[in-house]
Amino acid sequence: MRQLERLKNLIGVARGLGEPDLVLKGGQVVNVFSGEILNADVALYDGMIAGIGSYDGPKTIDATGCYIAPGFIDAHMHLESTMLSPPELAKAVIKHGTTAIMADPHEIANVMGIEGMRFMMDAARRLPVDIYFLLPSCVPATNLETSGAVLDAADLQSLRRHKQVIGLAEMMNYPGVISGNDEALAKLIALRGAVCDGHAPLLSGRDLNAYIAAGIHSDHECSELEEAREKLRLGVHIMIRQGTLAKNLKSLLPLVNKDNISNFSLATDDLHPHDLLAHGHLDHLVNMAVEEGLDPVGAIRMVTCNTARYFGIRDIGAVAPGYKADLLILSSLAPLCVRSVIKGGRILFDQGTLPVKTTAVASMGKMGQMGKMGRINIRPFKPEALAVPGAGKMIRVIGLVPDQILTRQMIVAPKIEGGAVISDVGRDILKLAVFERHQRTGNIGIGFVSGFGLKGGALASSVSHDSHNIIAVGCDDGDLFAAVKAIEKMNGGMVAVRKGKVLAGLALPIAGLMANGPLAEVAESWQELRRAAHELGSVLPEPFMALSFLALPVIPELRLTDRGLVDVNLFCHVPIFADA
Amino acid sequence: MRQLERLKNLIGVARGLGEPDLVLKGGQVVNVFSGEILNADVALYDGMIAGIGSYDGPKTIDATGCYIAPGFIDAHMHLESTMLSPPELAKAVIKHGTTAIMADPHEIANVMGIEGMRFMMDAARRLPVDIYFLLPSCVPATNLETSGAVLDAADLQSLRRHKQVIGLAEMMNYPGVISGNDEALAKLIALRGAVCDGHAPLLSGRDLNAYIAAGIHSDHECSELEEAREKLRLGVHIMIRQGTLAKNLKSLLPLVNKDNISNFSLATDDLHPHDLLAHGHLDHLVNMAVEEGLDPVGAIRMVTCNTARYFGIRDIGAVAPGYKADLLILSSLAPLCVRSVIKGGRILFDQGTLPVKTTAVASMGKMGQMGKMGRINIRPFKPEALAVPGAGKMIRVIGLVPDQILTRQMIVAPKIEGGAVISDVGRDILKLAVFERHQRTGNIGIGFVSGFGLKGGALASSVSHDSHNIIAVGCDDGDLFAAVKAIEKMNGGMVAVRKGKVLAGLALPIAGLMANGPLAEVAESWQELRRAAHELGSVLPEPFMALSFLALPVIPELRLTDRGLVDVNLFCHVPIFADA
Repeated sequence: MRQLERLKNLIGVARGLGEPDLVLKGGQVVNVFSGEILNADVALYDGMIAGIGSYDGPKTIDATGCYIAPGFIDAHMHLESTMLSPPELAKAVIKHGTTAIMADPHEIANVMGIEGMRFMMDAARRLPVDIYFLLPSCVPATNLETSGAVLDAADLQSLRRHKQVIGLAEMMNYPGVISGNDEALAKLIALRGAVCDGHAPLLSGRDLNAYIAAGIHSDHECSELEEAREKLRLGVHIMIRQGTLAKNLKSLLPLVNKDNISNFSLATDDLHPHDLLAHGHLDHLVNMAVEEGLDPVGAIRMVTCNTARYFGIRDIGAVAPGYKADLLILSSLAPLCVRSVIKGGRILFDQGTLPVKTTAVASMGKMGQMGKMGRINIRPFKPEALAVPGAGKMIRVIGLVPDQILTRQMIVAPKIEGGAVISDVGRDILKLAVFERHQRTGNIGIGFVSGFGLKGGALASSVSHDSHNIIAVGCDDGDLFAAVKAIEKMNGGMVAVRKGKVLAGLALPIAGLMANGPLAEVAESWQELRRAAHELGSVLPEPFMALSFLALPVIPELRLTDRGLVDVNLFCHVPIFADA
Repeated sequence: MRQLERLKNLIGVARGLGEPDLVLKGGQVVNVFSGEILNADVALYDGMIAGIGSYDGPKTIDATGCYIAPGFIDAHMHLESTMLSPPELAKAVIKHGTTAIMADPHEIANVMGIEGMRFMMDAARRLPVDIYFLLPSCVPATNLETSGAVLDAADLQSLRRHKQVIGLAEMMNYPGVISGNDEALAKLIALRGAVCDGHAPLLSGRDLNAYIAAGIHSDHECSELEEAREKLRLGVHIMIRQGTLAKNLKSLLPLVNKDNISNFSLATDDLHPHDLLAHGHLDHLVNMAVEEGLDPVGAIRMVTCNTARYFGIRDIGAVAPGYKADLLILSSLAPLCVRSVIKGGRILFDQGTLPVKTTAVASMGKMGQMGKMGRINIRPFKPEALAVPGAGKMIRVIGLVPDQILTRQMIVAPKIEGGAVISDVGRDILKLAVFERHQRTGNIGIGFVSGFGLKGGALASSVSHDSHNIIAVGCDDGDLFAAVKAIEKMNGGMVAVRKGKVLAGLALPIAGLMANGPLAEVAESWQELRRAAHELGSVLPEPFMALSFLALPVIPELRLTDRGLVDVNLFCHVPIFADA
């Protein structure tokens, strides 16, 4: 019985009778249980921590002058937002001390349903970072768009017992929950007993009570301190989010104190490649928290034991016997500086200070290619399909709001040419189109948007929340057409096009969401896309990010899906012509 | 779909659209998440908490001037030690604010194995106190005695998925675990992933590391502060025990602070009926903790959310939406005074201050009788079987140590009469006998004990840890015989006998461990037994308690099982005659 033998050996190592695989000698161990920092050796065996105290072995790491902390856990992350394949993501974050991620594979689920989730779970299986999955609760996000898949309560029920699944991912449909929507509640019932993450920005008072009473355990959408205080008091585990777009750490951290800290975690939610490359991952968040005045052990708790306990996982998040040997050697605690990362007992990252060589780092290099997953499936169309025959005096235009995902509805006079409404570069009113790409329906939603500032060409992307149809903005139909065709050719991705020519592109062949290359390459392509968009005249700091949110019909005020414009406040489709 | 409708209604009540079953108005709610005490109403529906805030309804309780706390949870308790049937125990503790107990049905498992455990689980099903079960890990405790049952790893595996089972109960066989005993480790492996409680008095250093690395999560055996500190630092959840015999609260509480308190719970382990009657249950422990200087909210956390979280139970231990409506109304916080207890939304205890009447309290009265469970099964024997033919010059005698469970081995000259060793009342050396009562083997272990001080008669009990054979101490064979026969007749229990007549008795017809009557009756019988023993000359404060531990061959130094004397240090049987 292999398991028994391994346990016996582990026990033997802990007792000092057997030989550890590795001993970290003389470090200062961050103790998340007592809140102390204590000098001790840490003996590892078979991927586990065998003992803390005084240990020796043939293979040691001198950790004198260093700190030893548990590996970090991201409490809520959409892997797809990094645009990296799971192996490349793992390679990118492990050097920042991340050893586990609580993932909501919401994006790929919208594109490919259970098949997409299984792909992610398979891809996650042999990675140097543990990825735990939560089941996406809102696929599709609305019935106002065409997604690639539908996940109903029965689907979730069928996946619940999967080894890698630990609960229900953010229940974004809080209006559905509190209004007693059958399908939303059926999903919560299907996951009864498991952890159910929440998502309820600014929900308050009795409605918040109702949402929580339905079985919601966490929230990562708090942006205001009083909002977080109210949720905390009602028993919600608060995930303080600090991602690329939503940054809540500074606002919320003043709420954290010794009486309540066990109810807090840190999470990135959506982290874009350039941000990950420039700032890192949870190490960056811990440093920010400490800069804001939190003690380092407290900050580390929010990315280790607090998160593990919230999710009910007993063997990660601490440096203690019987825990996974997921350990960080920090050359400095504040600011936190990761010298080496040990995952499951193997040294997977080292800043060149260790005498020990392992094959782990090398083998990580080979994990790379995931290939292609799914297919961009647009029904063939001609540029003429993009025409908007003139039929009214005023049109609805989606108005971008600087630094916000919110949009506002503008009502303006259209520019008409040859009997059709066209982009008006002078007034920065550009044509926006969403091409259904899952089921080959031929749906093309067309509208107009103001705020991109393009003077020519077009931008297009297969990343467009949450259904991830192809979205494109452009100055003329020819370039819109060319941009979409370019994405089709790459089997997903992002492009900037001028006069039919691709200026810059990033292929995202994995479900149209993720690239195959490493972080540096993806981040570089992203920069090139940004430069190209700016060359085309864009005035936005992140034009492709702005584009990716214009098809999201759950955030006010006006959006565009493959089925047409959506007035989010009315939660229904509206025509382009305001006077129609 | 009934479940869906109920959830909809709960949500409706939380939103203020539906009618709550009950509203607690104007109380000060103990918030275990934030550590605050906050004024709020609490709306209940369908046995759950629907909302906290401002609520109204047709049925309210005025909690003005009172505190509202979550129901208390005992982190570790052997129900059998109270000698009460589960329904009577529930009735007895609910008025002290206990709404959940983490039970180790270790005693009945030693007597009746899986059948006994199923009996307890069935009995627990409709009670006003939630009883969660942990699977006994050490049945029998040793191979030096005859128990009523054996629970092996396969048995535990078969019970693991039972709805009422939440983990593995205290792994007392810590020597087995650290020495790599196959059966002990197989049990830990069988429960992998679930919570595994520990029991490792004074274990320290590398051996402690080994024990924890094997998969142990808690300990309730700490008696010294530094012992608890070492275990805490190694990630062990510390259950501070304060029971009838073992009292550790005062020694350990100074270790608790705001940095580590989430790793502490309170537990009673073994609570005897007179103690429960005189002092209460967890309310008493909370009061003690506060007297020792802990803040009241901290003390309450140790009997509510800390325990629930340790065991991974998400819907008890706090006053928050979606939690079970297990609530205490306290007329005072320090000292804590329970005015009313609400369990699953029903008022189950009230000190006569509520205008609301429910049938719950009345129906609790009817739960009473559990009847008989199992049978005392001693092979018929004659008084002559108790004779000890003289065959040596010195005998081993079990020496009681005042106020300790420990015993010491004495070597003394025997009193011989008619060629046999007999009790020597003058020197307080009395005959002790253990009668196998499960399998009708006819085993009778005979030895001598010093410290009871009986001048005549005999005492006997079917409660004798851990195998619960019949144990008897007496001045002559006739009374020993009569005492055992009296217990046989009662189908289990405790008796004091003089000249063949029963002076006092307590029937324990449920597995020979538990009575049918209510607490007051059982406690009164216990007092009568004590009085009778004192009449017979006993000098011990609790003679029956002392008797019940003399067959426990895991605590040094000399013990007696049905198979004879055990030298616990040598961990083997030894003869009566020291010079044999």
